[in-house]
Amino acid sequence: MSIRLGVCYYPEHWPEEIWRSDAQRMAALGIKQVRIGEFAWSRIEPSPGQYQWDWLDRAIQVLADAGLEVVMCTPTATPPKWLIDQHADILPVDANGRARGFGSRRHYDFSSPSYFKESQRIVTLLAQRYGRHPAITAWQVDNEYGCHHTVVSYSAAAQQGFRRWLQQRYHTIDALNQAWGTVFWSAEYRSFDEIDAPVGTVTEAHPSHRLDYRRFASDEVARYNRMQVDILRAHAPGRVMVHNFMQMFTEFDHYPVAADLDVASWDSYPLGALEELWFAPEIKARWLRTGHPDFASFNHDLYRGMSAQPFWVMEQQPGPVNWAQWNPNPLPGMVRLWSWEAFAHGAGCVSYFRWRQVPFAQEQMHAGLNTPDNRLDIGGHEAQRVAGEIQQVEQAAGALQQPHGKVALLFDYAAKWLFEIHPQGADFHYPQVAFEYYSALRSLGLDVDIVPLSAKLDGYAMIVVPPLPVLPADLAARLKASGAQVLLGPRSGSKTASLQIPANLPPGLLQEILPIRVWRVESMRPNVTEPVESGGLQGKAYHWRDLIEADDGVQVVAAFGDGHPAILQHERSHYLASVFDADFTCDYFERAALAAGLAPERLPETLRISHRGGLTFAFNYGSQSCVVPHGEHAEFIVGASPLAAQGVAIYRSRH
Amino acid sequence: MSIRLGVCYYPEHWPEEIWRSDAQRMAALGIKQVRIGEFAWSRIEPSPGQYQWDWLDRAIQVLADAGLEVVMCTPTATPPKWLIDQHADILPVDANGRARGFGSRRHYDFSSPSYFKESQRIVTLLAQRYGRHPAITAWQVDNEYGCHHTVVSYSAAAQQGFRRWLQQRYHTIDALNQAWGTVFWSAEYRSFDEIDAPVGTVTEAHPSHRLDYRRFASDEVARYNRMQVDILRAHAPGRVMVHNFMQMFTEFDHYPVAADLDVASWDSYPLGALEELWFAPEIKARWLRTGHPDFASFNHDLYRGMSAQPFWVMEQQPGPVNWAQWNPNPLPGMVRLWSWEAFAHGAGCVSYFRWRQVPFAQEQMHAGLNTPDNRLDIGGHEAQRVAGEIQQVEQAAGALQQPHGKVALLFDYAAKWLFEIHPQGADFHYPQVAFEYYSALRSLGLDVDIVPLSAKLDGYAMIVVPPLPVLPADLAARLKASGAQVLLGPRSGSKTASLQIPANLPPGLLQEILPIRVWRVESMRPNVTEPVESGGLQGKAYHWRDLIEADDGVQVVAAFGDGHPAILQHERSHYLASVFDADFTCDYFERAALAAGLAPERLPETLRISHRGGLTFAFNYGSQSCVVPHGEHAEFIVGASPLAAQGVAIYRSRH
Amino acid sequence: MSIRLGVCYYPEHWPEEIWRSDAQRMAALGIKQVRIGEFAWSRIEPSPGQYQWDWLDRAIQVLADAGLEVVMCTPTATPPKWLIDQHADILPVDANGRARGFGSRRHYDFSSPSYFKESQRIVTLLAQRYGRHPAITAWQVDNEYGCHHTVVSYSAAAQQGFRRWLQQRYHTIDALNQAWGTVFWSAEYRSFDEIDAPVGTVTEAHPSHRLDYRRFASDEVARYNRMQVDILRAHAPGRVMVHNFMQMFTEFDHYPVAADLDVASWDSYPLGALEELWFAPEIKARWLRTGHPDFASFNHDLYRGMSAQPFWVMEQQPGPVNWAQWNPNPLPGMVRLWSWEAFAHGAGCVSYFRWRQVPFAQEQMHAGLNTPDNRLDIGGHEAQRVAGEIQQVEQAAGALQQPHGKVALLFDYAAKWLFEIHPQGADFHYPQVAFEYYSALRSLGLDVDIVPLSAKLDGYAMIVVPPLPVLPADLAARLKASGAQVLLGPRSGSKTASLQIPANLPPGLLQEILPIRVWRVESMRPNVTEPVESGGLQGKAYHWRDLIEADDGVQVVAAFGDGHPAILQHERSHYLASVFDADFTCDYFERAALAAGLAPERLPETLRISHRGGLTFAFNYGSQSCVVPHGEHAEFIVGASPLAAQGVAIYRSRH
Repeated sequence: MSIRLGVCYYPEHWPEEIWRSDAQRMAALGIKQVRIGEFAWSRIEPSPGQYQWDWLDRAIQVLADAGLEVVMCTPTATPPKWLIDQHADILPVDANGRARGFGSRRHYDFSSPSYFKESQRIVTLLAQRYGRHPAITAWQVDNEYGCHHTVVSYSAAAQQGFRRWLQQRYHTIDALNQAWGTVFWSAEYRSFDEIDAPVGTVTEAHPSHRLDYRRFASDEVARYNRMQVDILRAHAPGRVMVHNFMQMFTEFDHYPVAADLDVASWDSYPLGALEELWFAPEIKARWLRTGHPDFASFNHDLYRGMSAQPFWVMEQQPGPVNWAQWNPNPLPGMVRLWSWEAFAHGAGCVSYFRWRQVPFAQEQMHAGLNTPDNRLDIGGHEAQRVAGEIQQVEQAAGALQQPHGKVALLFDYAAKWLFEIHPQGADFHYPQVAFEYYSALRSLGLDVDIVPLSAKLDGYAMIVVPPLPVLPADLAARLKASGAQVLLGPRSGSKTASLQIPANLPPGLLQEILPIRVWRVESMRPNVTEPVESGGLQGKAYHWRDLIEADDGVQVVAAFGDGHPAILQHERSHYLASVFDADFTCDYFERAALAAGLAPERLPETLRISHRGGLTFAFNYGSQSCVVPHGEHAEFIVGASPLAAQGVAIYRSRH
Repeated sequence: MSIRLGVCYYPEHWPEEIWRSDAQRMAALGIKQVRIGEFAWSRIEPSPGQYQWDWLDRAIQVLADAGLEVVMCTPTATPPKWLIDQHADILPVDANGRARGFGSRRHYDFSSPSYFKESQRIVTLLAQRYGRHPAITAWQVDNEYGCHHTVVSYSAAAQQGFRRWLQQRYHTIDALNQAWGTVFWSAEYRSFDEIDAPVGTVTEAHPSHRLDYRRFASDEVARYNRMQVDILRAHAPGRVMVHNFMQMFTEFDHYPVAADLDVASWDSYPLGALEELWFAPEIKARWLRTGHPDFASFNHDLYRGMSAQPFWVMEQQPGPVNWAQWNPNPLPGMVRLWSWEAFAHGAGCVSYFRWRQVPFAQEQMHAGLNTPDNRLDIGGHEAQRVAGEIQQVEQAAGALQQPHGKVALLFDYAAKWLFEIHPQGADFHYPQVAFEYYSALRSLGLDVDIVPLSAKLDGYAMIVVPPLPVLPADLAARLKASGAQVLLGPRSGSKTASLQIPANLPPGLLQEILPIRVWRVESMRPNVTEPVESGGLQGKAYHWRDLIEADDGVQVVAAFGDGHPAILQHERSHYLASVFDADFTCDYFERAALAAGLAPERLPETLRISHRGGLTFAFNYGSQSCVVPHGEHAEFIVGASPLAAQGVAIYRSRH
Repeated sequence: MSIRLGVCYYPEHWPEEIWRSDAQRMAALGIKQVRIGEFAWSRIEPSPGQYQWDWLDRAIQVLADAGLEVVMCTPTATPPKWLIDQHADILPVDANGRARGFGSRRHYDFSSPSYFKESQRIVTLLAQRYGRHPAITAWQVDNEYGCHHTVVSYSAAAQQGFRRWLQQRYHTIDALNQAWGTVFWSAEYRSFDEIDAPVGTVTEAHPSHRLDYRRFASDEVARYNRMQVDILRAHAPGRVMVHNFMQMFTEFDHYPVAADLDVASWDSYPLGALEELWFAPEIKARWLRTGHPDFASFNHDLYRGMSAQPFWVMEQQPGPVNWAQWNPNPLPGMVRLWSWEAFAHGAGCVSYFRWRQVPFAQEQMHAGLNTPDNRLDIGGHEAQRVAGEIQQVEQAAGALQQPHGKVALLFDYAAKWLFEIHPQGADFHYPQVAFEYYSALRSLGLDVDIVPLSAKLDGYAMIVVPPLPVLPADLAARLKASGAQVLLGPRSGSKTASLQIPANLPPGLLQEILPIRVWRVESMRPNVTEPVESGGLQGKAYHWRDLIEADDGVQVVAAFGDGHPAILQHERSHYLASVFDADFTCDYFERAALAAGLAPERLPETLRISHRGGLTFAFNYGSQSCVVPHGEHAEFIVGASPLAAQGVAIYRSRH
């Protein structure tokens, strides 16, 4: 399985006279594939029904002439102004009932019938024209679904769609009333037509209603994506279908969307993400110019689990971005480090965004591989170095097999929605807890597969389940059958599929493997923690406590300061009744990993280790050089130990 | 006057087959009365004009069979969906002009003529059917007026109502122009029809306009409540009329609403209130699982002053709630402590919310006396213990007389509105200052009556007046005639009834008892304090300073660091020119109490003492046991000294 | 050039029987001019077409009788209710599409054709009636343009106006598409009629689109103002035309508005401004009751640069105001200090707001020279003292010439808009950086002229340019020709006029004097700083870094900790690549001032020095007395050295 570099390119942004030189310089740099065409609708169809294909024909040809493969995109993320003026119902509607207007991007409603039809039209035309073009080896469908919170819309079309969706799910209105529990607060409905979107209510809307609306909205993304994929497959046989997902855009479930594609790709912006996501200010300062050591790899491991073919990084940050609140400059070496880290975690391609910084419009401050005055920038030089190193590595080690961890972490998008809708504690943030579990595993040097609830669990030695409120009926049995050490986060099994408390109390369906009952919960404000202790190990518990009673035979392996159980174990299943500090979590996971027969090893804070294809990859996020635990007789293909700041080492251990 | 326990119950939430067992278990626990029916409209009238009374008939009968009294509620807090679809004008309108939609509760506008009429209809039907039912001894009107900020609406109906209200108040538009001072900024009106709601203006709307709008909105609540009470009294002779007010929902004046009822009740959620109200984060952490020692009692003392009959706690927190940002678990013993504290302050009934935690909908995480799987929860066990102790106490002491303090604290809802509309200092919060004064008194062991401005003041030794901008014309004379030590907060007398500065400067009408003039004021940002000193007592002043000049004969009893008077005294009247820190306030109040002939005694921080019916009640909010100042030969009926953490002691002092 | 005091007066707020006494007392106090009439529309025209001039005739006469000059205002800041009811399109529209309603002030849209016409009507009537009145020597046009964020409106009329404005600017839609770069994200337009206001988009609208909308909105203010001025000049020959600008209302460009007037005046509220503007909480507490020592003078120096005639302070804070979040009391002496400071910086008139505190409406807590019960307040006494001192000074020194600094600071309103629209770092605040540069110069005892980009630069020894993204084509040449030391802030020259990156990279047009290239930038979050060093001088850099490469011959005179240049110098031009801490900035400016042949002198923190007409003025903002660096043999006209807290000294140095 070979690995390669790509780049994102917008020929329409530049004078045609430099296209050829661009293409040749790309090829010379070691770039193999070029993504084009997303956002180009107004150039393809400048006026209704008037098409201009010639420039695009020529652009593709120029790239092909340079030996580059092309990833063609559908341009549906940016319908042009004239189309919006024709069909105002294309616009999504916000929670205040206002249309979200033209003038940026993603100004369309997934439920709009007009837009569905117009998208079919433009995608069909594009696919008919270019589907069999020999240089075009892949198609990207749309761009970054969910960006700018565009999954959930409150349009009339969405409301109609929601009613149909409910009818399909519940069949009768009585079944819905029963499932939701609408008798509460006299919210009973007489027909599906009485049901509005759960928005603009006096106080919080019914949580089951809200959860179903989020499920519906997520399904609409998958429906829309499938429409495009079906058209493309019909006209572009054998081409790879791909979408570029975006880090932590959790408003829709990525798994079903990915299931309709060949390759899941994601857009990796380690510095922008650090600034914009949940991290505390001191963490943001700590990793200012490198990103958090576990953030990109979390996403690599997540998207690796989405498609049979190796995932891609469709957009790789090449320098400062423009869209975070603050946009620092990556340290020299980080573009190379991020690139290799992606490959270490299984990427098939790392594609930089973008070839050249564009001097106009919203993203003019977003760096590229080249400066606006067309000189190779730092990121460009580092990409060139990576291209050379790929050759070295493939010469030394051949094509790299996909990595597989011995540890699985179960990730569930719907858990995010549920805790958002029904928090019970204001700062309980599902992705953060999932990330903290992942980070603890990674700081133990363990390779992790992030997988969906439906994943095959056989072969894992350890399975970590971040707070999982709703379980598939067979999950407990599958966890048990895996033979793995299973660690379950708090609030797991706490809800039924229609967001009710299970009749047998939480953890509901998990009682099959953990005969305990959560008879009470409490959430704790940020300035409150509870001490926790486990066999001499001291820590602090945050956010949440499940108060638990257990059947005989369940062991209390950690306890809170007031005596309530903090972690309970039954056979190979462990239930964590709270969220613990990083050290305590790491220590407990280390014990579990040892029990699972793994060989965890505490890494220095700035060092991360991954394994792929018989090779070990080491990455130093720190500002000091750092010793790599490579064992004796290791054969270094790239780098060395001690590993310099921002350094990458790739080696084969000899035992 | 006997005291008793009650519970809130929703038969419509549960299978009919468990109703009887529920009723029997309630009775066995010591519960005497059961509140039902609020929120049941969609079950009573599932479709327009189609009534289903049978289930409700049976539910009442089941409760009656178990010897329980029933508090029947009108279901008007939750009009069903079909009614909203019939009359869209029922919905309240927010400050942005958007209707606040169906899907939670309180989705009605007090000014909607449609809703007024529909409410008349459903209440009449209910009253006709059940008004004379022997088991129904009380009627609750609606539920928690004002919850979710539903008092003020900006609907067309409200606007029309406001114009009528203004016409009644001012008679001529000239009188209104004069009273408000509309010549300022060319805001003069030519007719009442030109006057809009004071919302959506470019900058702040006219404060007199805003204050009148708030008064109007408050009057609308009273008007609506009176409509229901009138219907109920006509059909349910001799039954107790009650509404369950909610802690610190100050958007309407509770006194006139209570005046139309027989019993004022309130819903006591000490932990939810602590988390959601003005308290600083460290205070919220300090009393996380007990609530603030003075908060529930502040409300008890407030609602005791609203009706001739003893107030009730209609809903008593039985465990964690679901609606605060964070929802901790009450410490064991707190449900009992809160229950006894209510009785100590004069409650006739403490009714727990709710019998059993419901596993669905918005409040599924709200604890009950029973867990969702129907086992008696901690709160249930504590309620049972209280039921037994009630018998002990009544055997030992007979029926308890209502408590009366020697100290009155004057509370005024309109003061809250006025300071909100016209703050002059962003963090000046009327209920907070009133509470701090109350807390200082309570930490001196003093029993306090919280009373309205119209209260009879004779017999009080000390009267504390939190910042009171607008005075009734006769208040100064009544304060003087009381013979009490009178302590007046800053900004008292600072405005006329139409929100102007009094012609003789503040404190306006209070100059009758305090011949001083506030010639200037200043507000201070939170990171600024001023030193204050009074006879060796040092403190800090916050928020606000009235700068004052005084006639001869007025004593300056405390001064700021820059020499301005901080407290002035004339005869028995004291004017506090600022808000002081807790210690200074407490010390000064102690001096005043001594001057008033009272016997203040500084209590430990966690201990509170109350007196009722010849008994002393002591409550320990702390985590350490604590000595109760019971004097010699006290006869303990419940508990002992030292008093355990979360302990209750009830004793008769023998002198 | 004589200097004098004025006052703002609202005869319509007071009973006519006290007008005469008011006028006489004003005159006795030393007041020379009285501003009246703004906000009086509803009294002039109480109903459509029904005029009441008599009261205004009499009010003017009463003032004239007392020997007072009158500044008459047009009343257009507050159209009356009946006018709004006639023409709903007068109301401005907010970013959510809601009309901003009647009920406060400035409820009009600069683009409304109805309001333009109605304004013409009322201004013409007023001008016809009073234009030649001998007592009326000046006309104020409207009041505080831009107050309450009223420059930018999203009405249909504004949208139409914007399209016309674009057509005039770009002529063809292709030119606009090219200038903005609309090919990005398929935002290409086919005609000007397709262009909406840049609001309500899914994510950020196109920055060039936004910048042009801001320019358009600013131009609309100038257009509206010019309409009124033209009418007034036609009917009021020889009268002074003035508008009262407001401190840091930067939403429109003040220079073109001022260019149509005779006198630029501003409204000086040092305490309100400190509380409401960008200052950190500890700075707000530090200067709580004095204001920041450089804030009023910054504005004096700014408005001095706007008109040939001496600027006025049209409204001078006379005590606490009502409109800041917190409103402290100025220390005794501050009203006098602020008044003299205005004169020291070139004011022709200082006019207090207001004669008497009004007891009603929105501003009832705003102090005046008199208390609401009509006694002379502190501010009144201090004004009286200033009136006397003016006589002393003018006797001793004659009429004072306008001050001129040797240092120019270039100020540009459009820079504020650009950085707001296109921040790249969330807390980069143009006025703050400009103010910090100014403050550094002032703490060196230097007199500063704040001037527009178009100013004549000859004669300055030092020119300081806060971050200036867009330059006029000739600025670099003019800077060079001035012969001054030129200090340029970061991000200068970073954009073209249509908000693109210059083809030759930043600093674009400045490369003529500074042959450097900013090849990359980074913004830094508030908890990150970078060390900086310059010849032994250590400091910290904040917010931003321009990473720069330089041609040979450019000197690196300061460097960041990681080696990147922090300040570069070429000949007399210095480029500051970041924002530095106050000490470092001050030290570097001191070096540059010395190189420029000036005599900077570090002043104590609380002392400020200004020069006018051969006199030196010293102001002590501190609470301790402080030595004034007056040299030997200075002749004190007012005050002395050491200078008392809040003291003013005026002296002639004898060398």
